[in-house]
Amino acid sequence: MTVPGTSLLNQFAAIVGEAYALRDPSSIVPYLTEPREKFVGRTPMVLRPGSVAEVSAIMRLAHDTGTAIVPQGGNTGLVGGQIPSADASQIIVSLTRLNRVRAVDVDSNTMTVEAGLTLAMAQTTADDVDRLFPLSLASEGSCQIGGNLSTNAGGTSVLAYGNARELTLGLEVVLPSGEIWDGLRKLRKDNTGYDLKDVFIGAEGTLGIITAAVLKLFPKPRGISVAFVGVADPPAALALLNVARGKAGTALTAAEIMSRLALETVVAHLPGARDPLAEPHGWYMMLEISSPNSQADAEQIVEAIFETAMERGIVEDGVRSESLEQAAAFWRLRHGLSDVQKFLGGSIKHDVAVPVSAIPELLSRAETAMQAVIPNSRPFPFGHLGDGNIHLNLTQPADMDKKAFLARWDEVNQAVHAIVTELGGTVSAEHGIGTLKRDLLPTVKSPVEMGVMRALKAALDPTGIMNPGKVL
Amino acid sequence: MTVPGTSLLNQFAAIVGEAYALRDPSSIVPYLTEPREKFVGRTPMVLRPGSVAEVSAIMRLAHDTGTAIVPQGGNTGLVGGQIPSADASQIIVSLTRLNRVRAVDVDSNTMTVEAGLTLAMAQTTADDVDRLFPLSLASEGSCQIGGNLSTNAGGTSVLAYGNARELTLGLEVVLPSGEIWDGLRKLRKDNTGYDLKDVFIGAEGTLGIITAAVLKLFPKPRGISVAFVGVADPPAALALLNVARGKAGTALTAAEIMSRLALETVVAHLPGARDPLAEPHGWYMMLEISSPNSQADAEQIVEAIFETAMERGIVEDGVRSESLEQAAAFWRLRHGLSDVQKFLGGSIKHDVAVPVSAIPELLSRAETAMQAVIPNSRPFPFGHLGDGNIHLNLTQPADMDKKAFLARWDEVNQAVHAIVTELGGTVSAEHGIGTLKRDLLPTVKSPVEMGVMRALKAALDPTGIMNPGKVL
Repeated sequence: MTVPGTSLLNQFAAIVGEAYALRDPSSIVPYLTEPREKFVGRTPMVLRPGSVAEVSAIMRLAHDTGTAIVPQGGNTGLVGGQIPSADASQIIVSLTRLNRVRAVDVDSNTMTVEAGLTLAMAQTTADDVDRLFPLSLASEGSCQIGGNLSTNAGGTSVLAYGNARELTLGLEVVLPSGEIWDGLRKLRKDNTGYDLKDVFIGAEGTLGIITAAVLKLFPKPRGISVAFVGVADPPAALALLNVARGKAGTALTAAEIMSRLALETVVAHLPGARDPLAEPHGWYMMLEISSPNSQADAEQIVEAIFETAMERGIVEDGVRSESLEQAAAFWRLRHGLSDVQKFLGGSIKHDVAVPVSAIPELLSRAETAMQAVIPNSRPFPFGHLGDGNIHLNLTQPADMDKKAFLARWDEVNQAVHAIVTELGGTVSAEHGIGTLKRDLLPTVKSPVEMGVMRALKAALDPTGIMNPGKVL
Repeated sequence: MTVPGTSLLNQFAAIVGEAYALRDPSSIVPYLTEPREKFVGRTPMVLRPGSVAEVSAIMRLAHDTGTAIVPQGGNTGLVGGQIPSADASQIIVSLTRLNRVRAVDVDSNTMTVEAGLTLAMAQTTADDVDRLFPLSLASEGSCQIGGNLSTNAGGTSVLAYGNARELTLGLEVVLPSGEIWDGLRKLRKDNTGYDLKDVFIGAEGTLGIITAAVLKLFPKPRGISVAFVGVADPPAALALLNVARGKAGTALTAAEIMSRLALETVVAHLPGARDPLAEPHGWYMMLEISSPNSQADAEQIVEAIFETAMERGIVEDGVRSESLEQAAAFWRLRHGLSDVQKFLGGSIKHDVAVPVSAIPELLSRAETAMQAVIPNSRPFPFGHLGDGNIHLNLTQPADMDKKAFLARWDEVNQAVHAIVTELGGTVSAEHGIGTLKRDLLPTVKSPVEMGVMRALKAALDPTGIMNPGKVL
């Protein structure tokens, strides 16, 4: 694509007003890279529209002039989906100013919010009417609903509530033509034609710009109890998960697993952290039970899980939180894992998921495979057992140069992805494709599936102006 | 389209074998109409493929020769989606022989089944491994999974578990080109490209033929308690729903409403039925609480709901089931409603849903509007309050001719649909569009939405051979 000239830029600027059309390089810089600084792009202009009508006018002009557009939310994505190309041909449309709560409907258990609202503000909006919006991510203070939906965000509460997709009832989308699709429905049942909503969710801004959404609200839990349990190995963890699901149903709101190395590292390096159990165990699980009814109810369910698991010899030892503080202390261990890994040196990461039943095989085979690539490297696995979504991190050997270790990132990824694919898994469980995994996609999808995706892209964005170079 | 000639029919027959290529009119007849006999078509041939490869070969030949194909499952659909046109140009592909259970993965809580498996058999398959497959419909003995997914079936457990769409993790689809898309994934998290699965679910066979699916399994409830409650009016029912959701969360597996006339009619005409409450009330609600844990747990939750609802003066009277038999007796009242209505004469029906908060307004406005069209007609509303999905049935005036009453079906529908649309509702909550509502669709959807739907259809079925004349 060609770089837009000054006259065209002036036309774009006129739509939002000069104050919201950034051209000055120093104002633009924050939009050109993301937190990990892995992706850096260039752009002649960042547009900050203040209404859906302005987004529509931008797309109409882009459509008429063949100008490429990159939608951007809170700019927290990890695969480069929100970063423009390096040739300065693409204009960024930042949704940040579209941040209104349009409506909260308590009886329908819905809220209608704009794309630029931060996830934390969406959570607060729900909380203010005594409801729960369960989507929760590390970046929730700055990530935005539009980005959450465009990447079908996951996070810590998928087990009970599903991904962003499952939390969405309706959408408003500006199409590549500039037309506005008003699909802001608050309906639990609606079988009138094709499901357009789910075409745009997870499309990473390549089919249109999500400008607003109707999101589901849930009752707030009135009691939460967290169990911290030592088990011998991943098959025992899986057996415990089954017992917990059987006893708790959807009251089981988290089922996390971590290795002994992971627990040891967080206990050693996180200030104030301590091992909740007296003896060391091979693996650990954290089970969170949320009751809509009462604290006593949540605790009773944990006791019922313990009783059955002990009877069957599944768990070695376990404790349950007896206060919100204690529950928070357990969660601190879990949330600390990503950060404390750095104390062991460099770390190579993956974003994989497999069918839940394949987790033990994945862990054992991936460990062997990674250590075959880099002898003495230390697997550091932890993650969402209940979702089949494990952070298969690999820590460098103690005596290896960090740079030399990280240089072998792709090689380790390849070894792990081969196993994941064989087990019917995915190479992008949460973060999406963006530019990072664009070349990987045709290696894990069939030509038939790639063909259908390309047909959808050509049908909805025939001139190819929506976030070019991403996904497909 | 032209009627396929004998030579072409012979080619189709050769794919499945003569025994499974029905040409004899008497064998074909059962495929040409549906239970209500509202839609009747003609076809030169019904193909009954025995494998996905045969379905693929059929579609390849259809594609090469421009032959129109109508996929058919258990033939229980109510909008004509599975019935061919009257010009004998379309060939029926019945999926009935593709009825294998391919895999059950208890640890992953999934089962992989073929399109022709009946819903009842799918439920049994889950039950056999101590799991629940929650989809449940009146026609479950004969309807099939492929049809359930192609129409995004709803039923009685949507409140807690969602529609067929939410119960599906992966699909296998034969495309109009004959290519097979293998999307049979068992993953709870997967963000690798566009969501193709949801494009085919609910598309009523107009974009491809679903041949198999990976379905979610759930823990089986260990305790069920049903409350039967008298309330003054729909706003009180809505308030009670809110209390129940707050106390039970997703343990609230049904929240049904019925009018006094509905209860009176079922008590008068269903053998052995009796009013569970001593005094008459304006409206009734049935709340079902399912506990994965125990019967005592389910009963405790009902008690907690009663306590709060009584305190707030929301309910007038209520009882809860103390045995499975009593719970079944309450459900018999609810399930008997469709059938006993005939004792009052003719009935005009709708398939509508609105945002849950709009239910009281819908009920009051629709009642007035229907009675304005036909004075002295008797509204007979009941349905899934928790889903915003009410069966807005209208019973004829006692002294009116039944035929004359039914002749005004469209007129009554129009009056109700206008209100539903104004309230942000849908004119097809459960049954789909098919041929019945094809002309209605452009009147309730924006030109933009119709345009996107047509673009999808053209992209995936460019020659227009998949179930022509349905949906769009």
